[in-house]
Amino acid sequence: MFRKEIKVFDCTIRDGGLINNYQFTDDFVKAVYRAVCESGVDFFEFGKKLAESDEYTRQKYGPWNFCDDDDIQRIIDSVECEHRPLIAVMYDVGRVDITKLVPRDESPVDMVRTACYVPDIDKGIDLARRCKDLGYLTTINIMAASAAIENDLIEALEQVNAIKEVDYLYLVDSFGAFYSEQITHYLNLYRKYAPDKELGFHAHNNQQLGFANTQQAIIDDVNLLDATINGIGRGAGNCNLELLLNFLKNPKFDVRPIYKVIQEEFIPLRKKIEWGFNDIYGISGHLNQHPRNAMKLRADKRKKDNAYDFFLESTRLDDVDIA
Amino acid sequence: MFRKEIKVFDCTIRDGGLINNYQFTDDFVKAVYRAVCESGVDFFEFGKKLAESDEYTRQKYGPWNFCDDDDIQRIIDSVECEHRPLIAVMYDVGRVDITKLVPRDESPVDMVRTACYVPDIDKGIDLARRCKDLGYLTTINIMAASAAIENDLIEALEQVNAIKEVDYLYLVDSFGAFYSEQITHYLNLYRKYAPDKELGFHAHNNQQLGFANTQQAIIDDVNLLDATINGIGRGAGNCNLELLLNFLKNPKFDVRPIYKVIQEEFIPLRKKIEWGFNDIYGISGHLNQHPRNAMKLRADKRKKDNAYDFFLESTRLDDVDIA
Repeated sequence: MFRKEIKVFDCTIRDGGLINNYQFTDDFVKAVYRAVCESGVDFFEFGKKLAESDEYTRQKYGPWNFCDDDDIQRIIDSVECEHRPLIAVMYDVGRVDITKLVPRDESPVDMVRTACYVPDIDKGIDLARRCKDLGYLTTINIMAASAAIENDLIEALEQVNAIKEVDYLYLVDSFGAFYSEQITHYLNLYRKYAPDKELGFHAHNNQQLGFANTQQAIIDDVNLLDATINGIGRGAGNCNLELLLNFLKNPKFDVRPIYKVIQEEFIPLRKKIEWGFNDIYGISGHLNQHPRNAMKLRADKRKKDNAYDFFLESTRLDDVDIA
Repeated sequence: MFRKEIKVFDCTIRDGGLINNYQFTDDFVKAVYRAVCESGVDFFEFGKKLAESDEYTRQKYGPWNFCDDDDIQRIIDSVECEHRPLIAVMYDVGRVDITKLVPRDESPVDMVRTACYVPDIDKGIDLARRCKDLGYLTTINIMAASAAIENDLIEALEQVNAIKEVDYLYLVDSFGAFYSEQITHYLNLYRKYAPDKELGFHAHNNQQLGFANTQQAIIDDVNLLDATINGIGRGAGNCNLELLLNFLKNPKFDVRPIYKVIQEEFIPLRKKIEWGFNDIYGISGHLNQHPRNAMKLRADKRKKDNAYDFFLESTRLDDVDIA
C-alpha cells in the first residue's frame, strides 16, 4: 500500500509508559526517539502532559506523564536528525492545566492530542481550541467509541466537525473490540457526520487485530495512523510499528532502525514488563469491555492464564436481575 | 458474522504436532478432541497419514504422523459426544502409501486432505481421486500460493476444477505473507479458475494476521475455515480457534470448552514448546519467505530475538550477481 498522504504517528513512549508509570530511563527514550527519527516516521509522542500536584508527582508517575518542555528538549538535543518528526503530547480531559501551556513557538512541542470520552466532548473541544490558539496542531481522540451509544457519538462527531480549531479527529478502539467490518462502519459514521475533518485511527491488539484493523483504516482512506514499536502498550498493546512500515510502501520510511531498537532495547524490556496479545485480553476485547479486569487478572500470578474462569466470570448473568 | 454454510475445521493436533514431532500424550489429544466435540466445531484433524518405514518410525515421529485407525478410534472412544466432528487426516504428496488406505466405511476417518505444492498438483489430484474412490471426503490444499508463479497457480486451479473427486480446494498462506487485500485477490483467482469448487482457507500468523485474514476469507465467502486452539502451530502458528468462534455468531458453536482446554492443557504446554507471533516470523512473512530460516533462528537461544540482524540477513543483496 502506497498513498503519499499517509502519516505514521509513533506513540511508543506514551502508550508504553502506561505499563510502567513512565519509568523509562533517559537512554531508553533517547534510543526510541533516535529510531523513530531515522525511520522517517512523521510524529513522535513523548507522553501525557498532565498537571503535577502533591499527590501526582514526577517521581512517582515519571517525567513522561508531565512532558515538561525541558525534558523533551533534552531528548531531542541528544539526536542529530535531518528530518525530525513532529513532536506530540497528550492531554487527558480533567487532568491538565492549560494555563501552563506556552505558545508553540516557545516549545519543542508541535501537536497536542486531546483524549476524551463522548460525554466530555465539550471539554475536549475547549482544550483543543485553546491549544490551537497557542499555535499547536490539534486532535480530538474520542476514546472507547465501541462503547458509546451511537447517537451520542454522532452528536459528538457533528460538534467536532463544526470546530475549525481541531485538525484531526481520531477513531480509537480503546477496548480492542472492533472487527474490520466495524472499523469500516464507524469510519463511515465519522465521514458522514464529520466530513470536514482529517481522520486518524488508534488500534488496540486485544484480539490480535491491531495491525489488521489499522490496515482496514488505511483501506478506508484514513491517513494518520498510530503505532508503537514492538506493539508496546498497556494490556494487549497496539499496532506494531514495524509491521505497519512493512505494509506501507512509501519510500520515506525505513524499518531497519525500528528492528534495531527492538533487538537492543525492547527484547530486554520484555523481561521486566509484559504487553501483547493473550486470551485474557482476547476475551475482554471480544466482549467490548474496559480492559481493567483483564489487567487485574494478568497481575495475579496464580490466575493470570485462567482464560476459562475469566470467560465465565465475564459472561455470567448477574444474580441481581436488571432486565 | 453468521452464515449457516460456515464450517470450522480444527487442525490443532496436526499443526501443533509439527512443533514437537507429534509427541503429545494420549491424555492431551483426548482433552483436545473432547473440547472440539463439545464446542460444536465441524471437523477434527488428527494428524498426517504418512508411510511408516525403518527410518521413519512411530517412536521417533509420533503416532499422529501416521494416524493409524486404531489410534484414532482409541481417542474417539474416550469421549461421549452427541454430534462428533468429522474426522480428517492429511496426506503429503510423495510421503504416503495409498495402498494401505482402507475404505471409509471400515475406518473412523471421514476426510483425507491432500497437501501439495503447485508443481505436484497432478500427484495431489491423483491421491484425492483415489481417496474419493474409497469413499472419503477430499480436499486439495495448495501450499505456498504466495510463492507460486501466478500462471502456474491458475493452471493448477483449472485442473482441480475439472476433477469432480475433489470436494474442497484450499487457499493456504503457508508463509504467512498475505495481507487482507491479497486474500481477496487470490480468492478472486480461485473463484475465476475453479468456479465449481467449494473453497477453504488456512492461515498462518507470521504477521499477526492469521485471524484477520480468516475473517477476510469469510467476508469473501469462504465457508471452510481452519483454526487451532490457542493458535498452536509451527512457527508463528495459526488462526486462533477461540477468536474465530467468538467472531462467528452461529449458535451451534460454544467457545467455552476451548477456553477450558486452553487453561488446563495449553498454558502448561507453552512452558515446553513455543509458538506464536514474534518479529522474526513477522519479517519472514513480510518477505514471503519459507519460515525455515526464522525457525532455525528461534532455535538458537543466543540469537533468537535478533530481529535487526535477521532483517539485514534476509534482505541483503547477494555477493553473487544474479540479475
